Order: sequence, then C-alpha cells, then structure tokens
Amino acid sequence: MALGFADAGVLAFDVGGTDMKSGVVTADGTVLALQRHKTPLDPQRPGEAILERIEQLYGEYSHQFPAGTFEAVGITVPGLVDEVHGVGIYSANLGWRDFPFRDLAEQRLGIPVAFGHDVASAGSAEMELGAAREFQDAMVMVVGTGIAAAIFTSGRPVTAGGFAGEIGHAMVPDPDGQGSVILESVGSAGAIAKRYRRITGTEVDGAREVLERAMTGEPEALKVWNQAVEALAFSICQCVSILGTEAVVIGGGLSAAGEALLEPLRSAVDDALDFQRRPVIRAAALGQDAGMLGSALKARARLLEVKLS
Amino acid sequence: MALGFADAGVLAFDVGGTDMKSGVVTADGTVLALQRHKTPLDPQRPGEAILERIEQLYGEYSHQFPAGTFEAVGITVPGLVDEVHGVGIYSANLGWRDFPFRDLAEQRLGIPVAFGHDVASAGSAEMELGAAREFQDAMVMVVGTGIAAAIFTSGRPVTAGGFAGEIGHAMVPDPDGQGSVILESVGSAGAIAKRYRRITGTEVDGAREVLERAMTGEPEALKVWNQAVEALAFSICQCVSILGTEAVVIGGGLSAAGEALLEPLRSAVDDALDFQRRPVIRAAALGQDAGMLGSALKARARLLEVKLS
Repeated sequence: MALGFADAGVLAFDVGGTDMKSGVVTADGTVLALQRHKTPLDPQRPGEAILERIEQLYGEYSHQFPAGTFEAVGITVPGLVDEVHGVGIYSANLGWRDFPFRDLAEQRLGIPVAFGHDVASAGSAEMELGAAREFQDAMVMVVGTGIAAAIFTSGRPVTAGGFAGEIGHAMVPDPDGQGSVILESVGSAGAIAKRYRRITGTEVDGAREVLERAMTGEPEALKVWNQAVEALAFSICQCVSILGTEAVVIGGGLSAAGEALLEPLRSAVDDALDFQRRPVIRAAALGQDAGMLGSALKARARLLEVKLS
Repeated sequence: MALGFADAGVLAFDVGGTDMKSGVVTADGTVLALQRHKTPLDPQRPGEAILERIEQLYGEYSHQFPAGTFEAVGITVPGLVDEVHGVGIYSANLGWRDFPFRDLAEQRLGIPVAFGHDVASAGSAEMELGAAREFQDAMVMVVGTGIAAAIFTSGRPVTAGGFAGEIGHAMVPDPDGQGSVILESVGSAGAIAKRYRRITGTEVDGAREVLERAMTGEPEALKVWNQAVEALAFSICQCVSILGTEAVVIGGGLSAAGEALLEPLRSAVDDALDFQRRPVIRAAALGQDAGMLGSALKARARLLEVKLS
C-alpha cells in the first residue's frame, strides 16, 4: 500500500488499552518488523511507563535498521487527546492526566514526534487510504470493547480540542426499559457478550459467539444482536441528521461480523431516516493496522512540518 | 452594528415559509428600509413566484435609493439548499425542487447574487456578529414552528451538500411511550402548543401561553414544557457527544422564553452528560434579523469574490 512516503520512513506506535503495536513504515509505504507487546501499566506513573517502553523499542528498531530508515516517530493513544499540544489529557483505562507525550518523546528520542488519538488516527487512515477514500463527510466508527468515532466534514477531521467523536457515550433508547442508556452499553462488542451472559447465564467467547448462536436461530442471541444493531443505527441516524454524513465506516472488533452486521444495520438506518441522506455503510478496509498507519501518516506530516520550518 | 462593510452596501432578502423580509444593509452595517411581505405562494411555479417578487422589490429599492447604494443581492430560503451551486433543492413548505435561484436572479437583476440557506445564514451571522462570536465549535439551533440548526466545527460551517443541520428530524425518546419520535414533534414551539391542546382540549395562543400557564403551576402545561426541554437537551447532548460542541445558541420563536427555557435546558444537559464538554447555552443575539444579516454577509462575500475574479 503506497502511503506516498516519497523520501522518508517513520517508526509508528499505536498504544491500545491492552496491547501496543509498533512497526517501521518505509518510504514506499511497506510496514516492516511489525511487533505487538502488552501495554505497560503503572498506576503511579502511567504515561512514563509507556514512554519508557517506546524509548526502549526505539532503541531496538534503531539497532535493527540502518540509520535514516526512519526519520520521525508517530504515537497514538486512546482517551481524550489534545493533538495540537501533543498532550494526553485523560485516559480512563491507562490512567494518565495531562501528560505531555509529544514534547517528552521528542526530548528523549531526539527526532520529530507526532502525537495523536488512536481512533482519530485510524479514521484519518481510512479517509486517506481506506474505505472512506472517496467521501468528504464521513464517520469512521470503531466498535470494539467500547465505541468511539472519527468525524470528518468537508474532508477535515473534527477535533474540538479532543472532545469530538465520543458517540459511544451518546444516549440511545434503553432496549430493556423506557429510559436511555449510552450506546456503548448496548451496541459494542463488549456489551453484546455481557448482555447475552446476563440474560442467559451462559458464558460466551465474546460477541462472535453470540452472533454464531444468533445465526442458528437462538432467540436470546438474536435479540441481543438485533438490539445492538438498533442501537448502532440510532446513533448513526443522529450523526446523519446533524451532519449530513454520506458514509459510515465500521471498524474495530465487531466489524469482523461483516455483512451479518452491515446488512441489518443498513436496513435499520434506512427505516429510521426520512428525507435525509442515506449514508453508505461499509466495513473498514485497513483492519487492525488502521491506527498504526494513521500514526505513520501523522509522523510523516510532522516530519514535513519540521523540514519546512 | 458594524458588519465591516467598508465600501459597499447590499440588498438582503430572507424568504421564510410565511413572510419574506428585505432591507438595504449599508456600507457601515446599518439596516435601511426594512420591509416585511407575505411570501408569494404559487404551487405551479413556486420558485418563479418568489423571484418575481424579489425582482419587483429590487426595482422599488433601486428607485428609492441613489445608484451605488447596494452592489449585490443576498437571498436566503428554507429547505434543502445547495449553496455551492446556488440551487434550492427542495422546500416542503414552499414547493420547489432544484430551482436555480442564484443564476436566474443574477440574469434578471444584473448584479452579483449570493444564495443561501436561511438557518445556515442566521447561524453564520450569530457566529460572526452575535452570540457565538467567541466560539469555534458551535451549534446555532433555530427553534420555532420547526427546528433546524447551523453547525460549525473549527469555525467553519458544516454544509454536506445542504444536508447538514436537520436536527429537528433526529430522534428523541417519545415522552408518551417507549419508542422514539422526531425532536420537532416534541421540542418545537409548534409542538408545545399542539401537544398542550391535544392533552387538555384547551385552545392556546402558541408556546408562549403554555409557558405562562406552566409558570402558574398548571400541571399539564408544566409537563408539556418540561418534555420539550428534555427533548431539546437530548438532541443537544447528541451533538456534544459527537462533535465536542462548546456552545449552543438558541434562536427562533421559542428563544423569546429566555431563562425560562435556558435555565432548565442547561440543567438537563448537565445532568445527561458524563465526562463530555459542558456547552455554554445561550439565546441568540440578533433576533429575527439574523437570517437577513447572514444574507447580507453572504452578499458581501459574493461581491468580494466577483471583484477579485
């Protein structure tokens, strides 16, 4: 896949709640030496622990590859992120508050560092290289343990100081009652498994197994799956009504369900909309590497910025 | 109010579903000869009928003012609008489909014409001159007979080919049942009056009278008013979660309620949000003239575009 890196490679990190991925993305866009490690957790110094691991891996990659193979580093993290100032504002899972990742990493590594939000980076990669390539007004929705989105209007990412894209915490009708609950508690892969367990008392190996059971016609599994689809459709329609979104790209673990998810989702969205635009709904194209590729794109942009300044 | 019109006045029209407003906005931003007429309705030729009235009024204003008083015309209309191509795509109330307002008006009037959406224009005026002046990520929500919004991210309007801002048609929990209904059917001034009449069988003079009755403690009026507030809060929270909106400006007829609307609305939004940004919620500053002032701003921009090309 050509990233358009005409003259420089970068070293990209995608730090997740459980794992962190790293790899060298070369000048012609090839990913080399892809590695996956457990994300280091240190409740006392959560940001420091991650930076130290990045520093260590940077040393190893530098040792493994000839000088000049990569000229910048990209780091993406979850949570609330201030991309402009390179600060991790808050991560509920990893525990930091206002940690200046970019500046500290640049000091320690001595080369330009780009810092971004994991979902925003994955979204940018889908917009530039993946499933949303031909669209200007799009939402890339990452549906896994939780749910978050990268929103684009007129081809530009909506950032709002790091506060945009928290669609997983927007309200949807409670399928079990009259009130409302957050989308993430019904529509995420995590919620599908959890709600199925709660209803049936049966242990399952994630949303995938609930889908398998639904495919055999098991009523409880079908019910939980359909409620997840309805919840996702509700939130997609909110986005379409407010923003006129023309394409919705579904990534994250749940997108592995493919048409078993997308076909009923399209149908539910179509039923719920009136005169509004009907968005194209499709699966993400870059899979689990989207965040790392987005991180590489950001590192490349940062390098150009430094070279031009 | 200074519009920053250093060197040229414009003639601005704001075409509504019932009335159309017009006025000369001078070089220093003063509004002169403000007029209000019934919007001409002709089911056979809805766009033509409006253009003819604009042509006639243009003639009258040209006769009334010295040559050079206005050098461009601004026209705003409701419905779905393609601002880029100057086309009225669709208006449910006024009846046109794909009517090329801008090009026809330029041919007939012989001076530059800007064409825009009424709510988007009112929103731009509030962003540039009014209540949203100091914000980059904002929603200007016009709550009257219906509900529509102008959405801004990073200071730029979200257009999406004319499809953005239809928040009045986004779903909210049905206060009378378990399902969902569109925001407009619960939260608009029109819906408040209609729902009160339906519940009580009592005729009222609009949402204003329902509010007056609620202030005296009448339970049905209080219920209908509070349900409207809850519905508006639900939709505002959707916008905040998706876009990280930092300010919500309420315009339209219902904003006349002032703090009787805004105070419970702030409280309901605050209760419904978790870690998300708390938006500033305030009333529109430009009142009923926002659409016409936005129309004038667009006309001014169009004039600069023509002069520079």
